[in-house]
Amino acid sequence: MNIEIYWGSGSPFAWRVLLALEIKRLPYHSRLIEFSKRGHKTPEFLKMNPRGKVPTLKDGEYVVYESIAILQYLERKYPQIPLFGTTPEQAGLINQDVCEVLDYIEKPVSQLTGPLFSGELADKESQVREAARALHQEFSHYDDRLKHSQWLRGDHISASDITLYPSVPTVLRAAGKPAAKALDLGFLPLAQRYPDLARWSAAIESLPGYACTYPPHWRE
Amino acid sequence: MNIEIYWGSGSPFAWRVLLALEIKRLPYHSRLIEFSKRGHKTPEFLKMNPRGKVPTLKDGEYVVYESIAILQYLERKYPQIPLFGTTPEQAGLINQDVCEVLDYIEKPVSQLTGPLFSGELADKESQVREAARALHQEFSHYDDRLKHSQWLRGDHISASDITLYPSVPTVLRAAGKPAAKALDLGFLPLAQRYPDLARWSAAIESLPGYACTYPPHWRE
Repeated sequence: MNIEIYWGSGSPFAWRVLLALEIKRLPYHSRLIEFSKRGHKTPEFLKMNPRGKVPTLKDGEYVVYESIAILQYLERKYPQIPLFGTTPEQAGLINQDVCEVLDYIEKPVSQLTGPLFSGELADKESQVREAARALHQEFSHYDDRLKHSQWLRGDHISASDITLYPSVPTVLRAAGKPAAKALDLGFLPLAQRYPDLARWSAAIESLPGYACTYPPHWRE
Repeated sequence: MNIEIYWGSGSPFAWRVLLALEIKRLPYHSRLIEFSKRGHKTPEFLKMNPRGKVPTLKDGEYVVYESIAILQYLERKYPQIPLFGTTPEQAGLINQDVCEVLDYIEKPVSQLTGPLFSGELADKESQVREAARALHQEFSHYDDRLKHSQWLRGDHISASDITLYPSVPTVLRAAGKPAAKALDLGFLPLAQRYPDLARWSAAIESLPGYACTYPPHWRE
C-alpha cells in the first residue's frame, strides 16, 4: 500500500476522499495541489488524469479519479471498516444516498457558492436565491432523517455521510461571506433551523483525523 | 428473488437497469409506468420512492432507486456475470467511467434532447448547440477508446458500457427530429463521424434480451 491523494484546499469532492482515508485509518501521502498555480493542469498531472481534476488517487502504479469511484476502489481494496455497509441491501441504500447527493445537492451548492466565493454576485442574485431554496429543501430532508439516528444509514458512519458532509460547511462558509449578508439566506447559524444536521456535522468534526481533512486556506 | 423494475419508456436511467437485468440474466417483472398518466406520482409509487422517479427496483420487500445504486445493489446481491469487474482496480476504473458519464454526459444530453423532444426550440437554440458541442467532445473521447477494444473496460461488457449506452440512441433520436434538421448537429449517421462508437452500439443492440429494454413508444 502506497497511497497518494492529490487534492485541493476547499474542494468538497476531494474532502470526501480524505475523510474516507481517515475513517478507514489508511496511511497516505497528502499531495496538496495549488489551484492558483494551476497544479492540476501540469503535464505530469494531466498524464494521471486527463480531465485535470481533483481528487485523484494513486496507489502504487494504479490511478483512479472521481471522488465516488475512489471511495468504491478503497472499499473493495481495503474492506476493513466498511463505508458501504456489509450486505447488498445496505450497499444499495448507501449508494442511493450517494447518488441523491450528486443529483440534488452538488448543482445548487455550486450555483450558490460560485458567485459568493468569487464576489461576482451582480447578475447572479436570483440564481443564488433559487439554489438556496433547493438546498433548504434538501437540508430539511436530511435534518428529518437525522432526528432519530446518529448517522444517515445504519449504526456507523458510511459513504452516505461522507458524500454529503463537505457540502454543509461549504454552504455555511459561502453564507458567511459579506456579499451573502444582505441576501439573508437563512443558513446561519445551522443549529437554529437544522439542529440535527448541526449535531451530525459536529460528530463528523470530532472524528480523529478530521483536522487533516480541513481546507488549509479556510484557516487563514 | 422476486425482482420488479418500475421504469418509463425512453428514460435513459431506467434503460441502464433493464440492460443490467438482461445481461445478468435475472428474471424480473416489468412494471412500465406511464408518465402521461403520472404513474410515478401516485400515492403507492411515492410510498416506494418519495422523489417519484424511475427507475425504482423492488426485490421482495426491499426497495432501491437511482439507476447507479440499483446497479451496485444487483452486483452485490447477484454477483454472477459481474458488471463492475472482478478486482478492486477494475471496480475503481469502471466506477470512474460511470461517474464520468454522470458528470459530462447527462447534463448536455438533457439540454439537447429536452427542447428537441418537446418541440420548444424557440429560445433554446444556443443551448442545444452548446450541448451538441460538449457531446461531440465526449463522443470523440469514447470513439477513441473503442478503437482497439470491443468494450469500454476489459474484455466484457460492464457498467461502463451500460451507463453510457442509453445516451447514444437518445441523442440520435433527438437529432432526427424535424426541428433538429435545420441545426445540422452532425450526429447522423453515427458511423460517419464515430465508427467505433457505432460498432459498439450495434454490439449492445445485438445482445440477447436487448429488445425487451427498447423504449416501447419509440416503435410507434
